[in-house]
Amino acid sequence: MASVEVPIVRVRDGQRRPALDRTAAEEPLEIRIHDRSFAVIMRTPGHDCELAAGFLLAERVIATPDDLGAIELCRDAENVVNVTLANAAHDRLDRIAADRRELVANSSCGICGRTTIESLRVNLAVVPPGFQVPGAWIGSLPERLRAAQPVFAATGGLHAAALFKDAGAPTASAEDVGRHNAVDKIIGRMIMRDALPLADVVLFVSGRTSFEIVQKAWCAQVPILASVSAPSSLAVALARDAGITLVGFVRDGNFNIYTHPERIS
Amino acid sequence: MASVEVPIVRVRDGQRRPALDRTAAEEPLEIRIHDRSFAVIMRTPGHDCELAAGFLLAERVIATPDDLGAIELCRDAENVVNVTLANAAHDRLDRIAADRRELVANSSCGICGRTTIESLRVNLAVVPPGFQVPGAWIGSLPERLRAAQPVFAATGGLHAAALFKDAGAPTASAEDVGRHNAVDKIIGRMIMRDALPLADVVLFVSGRTSFEIVQKAWCAQVPILASVSAPSSLAVALARDAGITLVGFVRDGNFNIYTHPERIS
Repeated sequence: MASVEVPIVRVRDGQRRPALDRTAAEEPLEIRIHDRSFAVIMRTPGHDCELAAGFLLAERVIATPDDLGAIELCRDAENVVNVTLANAAHDRLDRIAADRRELVANSSCGICGRTTIESLRVNLAVVPPGFQVPGAWIGSLPERLRAAQPVFAATGGLHAAALFKDAGAPTASAEDVGRHNAVDKIIGRMIMRDALPLADVVLFVSGRTSFEIVQKAWCAQVPILASVSAPSSLAVALARDAGITLVGFVRDGNFNIYTHPERIS
Repeated sequence: MASVEVPIVRVRDGQRRPALDRTAAEEPLEIRIHDRSFAVIMRTPGHDCELAAGFLLAERVIATPDDLGAIELCRDAENVVNVTLANAAHDRLDRIAADRRELVANSSCGICGRTTIESLRVNLAVVPPGFQVPGAWIGSLPERLRAAQPVFAATGGLHAAALFKDAGAPTASAEDVGRHNAVDKIIGRMIMRDALPLADVVLFVSGRTSFEIVQKAWCAQVPILASVSAPSSLAVALARDAGITLVGFVRDGNFNIYTHPERIS
């Protein structure tokens, strides 16, 4: 299951029509070591044992293939792999766990996008309806963002995020090598201006929209999140539950609305 | 300092010439809470206090602007911000720290790309020279990767990574919503085949090359790392010290060589 079909509203030349779109599948994966939780990462399902092996090499838990005993998908838990270490890696694990975080004994029935969203719902209020913007206003976001991206023009290597309150220039924008950082920087600026919740803004990002980007938008109560590129399946599911209007593929004045299309007139 | 100029070898129509290229600046930022280390994130320097505020909102350390006391750049430490929390956020911090990891008291003189690279050098051997590939072979990587990316074609929302040993199809490839995951998946597959170190391969990735991607390549002793897009400043610095040949902007048969050009004939 590497992609998930979702119903969308497709906007082309100002005309709206319902359609289906395939989104890249995103689900959490819990990596356990000797049945204790070591890390949870968001990934596209498939090749999960390989993912765990590569992740543990980069985290320096294993240094060579010999350090690996076994890696197995948990048969009775969804989205969980359990790793058994061999010999030397045992001692290394103790050091890394002390550095990094406590390993937590875990006997739950697994995790999935649904449980991950539920855990956020406990803490965050659904974004209220009300704020509306014209479709043409969304279509012009890329050129308005580009005008606020001086370093991208020089390096081709930065992500950008910006907040828009009207049809003009952004009220705030930031660039960073990290997509998440660019979003944190502008939401952080609004925190320091005591401007939360962000009730009447569009947050526009240059990259793909993953679960974490929607989560950051939700924490700031952003009503409309738009991107030049594709959202993941879990980003769509989270935006739906958060009450956020999620827009993707904003290009040449056209775009797709993945959730809550009523905010775009 | 949002970008850094580096010397490169530019390859156009099969001709090599030395040039200068601007890379997006990447440096670690340590976020301390009440003078104790809470997290280290890789970011483009600038707006660091805003970044810390936004990051702490998304991590649920703060819930509203009122939870923030002060955020200050450490005057005597490079790349460090110190956050003082107000009232309610204090208690929340204790819960989150217990969940997440221990906060570590920190009195060091700050961190920078240099110290971050040094800490890797302690554990990892420099990748030995020897492996060489023709330039035309690098130029054809994008079309050879595209042939191995079925889900990207359907969703436009996945990153890909692949290993190439010759001028044909990849020996291994993976797709994922996360750039890092796609790399972990194929390196993990090689671990499970007991094929490390990866002495005679090119690792090709679809996205930008950050510090962490080079780190993952180094852990597997990959000699040549190439990308369709831009590397960060710290990716270039790390590849230089790791002995890895770093190639960027592989497009239409042309590319830039950022480090160790002797492996490309």
